[in-house]
Amino acid sequence: MKVNSIPKATLGRLPQYLQYLKKIQFENVSTVSAAAIARGLSLGEVQVRKDLAMVSGAGKPKVGYERETLIGDIERHLGYERFTSAVLVGAGKLGRALLDYDGFEDFGVKIVAGFDSNEQALQLGKGTKAILPIKDIEAYCEQHDVKLGIITVGQGSAQDVCDKLVESGIEAIWNFAPCSLKVPSGILLKQENLALSLAHLNNQIGK
Amino acid sequence: MKVNSIPKATLGRLPQYLQYLKKIQFENVSTVSAAAIARGLSLGEVQVRKDLAMVSGAGKPKVGYERETLIGDIERHLGYERFTSAVLVGAGKLGRALLDYDGFEDFGVKIVAGFDSNEQALQLGKGTKAILPIKDIEAYCEQHDVKLGIITVGQGSAQDVCDKLVESGIEAIWNFAPCSLKVPSGILLKQENLALSLAHLNNQIGK
Repeated sequence: MKVNSIPKATLGRLPQYLQYLKKIQFENVSTVSAAAIARGLSLGEVQVRKDLAMVSGAGKPKVGYERETLIGDIERHLGYERFTSAVLVGAGKLGRALLDYDGFEDFGVKIVAGFDSNEQALQLGKGTKAILPIKDIEAYCEQHDVKLGIITVGQGSAQDVCDKLVESGIEAIWNFAPCSLKVPSGILLKQENLALSLAHLNNQIGK
Repeated sequence: MKVNSIPKATLGRLPQYLQYLKKIQFENVSTVSAAAIARGLSLGEVQVRKDLAMVSGAGKPKVGYERETLIGDIERHLGYERFTSAVLVGAGKLGRALLDYDGFEDFGVKIVAGFDSNEQALQLGKGTKAILPIKDIEAYCEQHDVKLGIITVGQGSAQDVCDKLVESGIEAIWNFAPCSLKVPSGILLKQENLALSLAHLNNQIGK
């Protein structure tokens, strides 16, 4: 079960809090103050209080946070109770870079397999993750309860891939193809436009 | 010379406008209406008017836009008058994917070279762009008037690389390493956190 949506900046700090709380496990403390967490992570105390209030009720005045409860609450927000399984379609360089990146698991997402239509790409799957033929994607997604699809194919086939993912029962799409996609209502879509990020930065140079 | 900063969404549509205007060159038209552009690109006419007003004064009531002037104005906003040269440090999979991606040039940025400290990575530079040893970066950046640095190294060496780039006279940093960087005031910094984008999407699934 997922909980309320929290701001992206807070979400981004949750793995740090988690890491800190797990580190102090060995110090035999059962409660920890916002001030101590703030010091430990070089963050502002007010920010720590705000962030943690959004994900947990484990904080008590003059006592601090119950460590175990707080760990559980953060893990729940990060989706650790049940990892979201993701597939990636398009095993070019960017696709393979994302496939091999393990930082996504810190946020509760596991890319379980890559797919490609190109025989050569299938042979390139020498990482730990399989790159499978695209024709098998529907069966795979149903079998593995995949909820999230990552699209790293070119502009020309992105909508086709997107449709296939939707048919496979996926709930959210993360699209790196430089084109806008149409999805049925109820399907989440996040467009990632790296070139545009760079353009925006470039546009500010020398101002 | 750079012009005023414009919204990211508008910026993202500029290459489309440019493509359309260049296409109709063959139709021997010297002026074009916002309505025609909107139809040609499946955009709203109001949006087209707003976007183009931000980058050009080439629109005249009842006449439309002077095509040549509008093309020039858009190209200027996209930095085509003088491409920004960029270098990339960290030729892992993500780094090499970005190095080989040619979509950045649509937005006036050319990645002119990659750098890496790893001998193996140097040998992997089989694309069109050189991957050079990191020790040469300062001399290279000065010689080629590089304004933008892209960091795709790991967390551990990102600040070092960032410092080196700043010393090399770079004005903007695009950081993919999952850590925050310190830059002197006056240096632009854009943090790209792909894992966090995915986390945010994941956090909304099943709401």
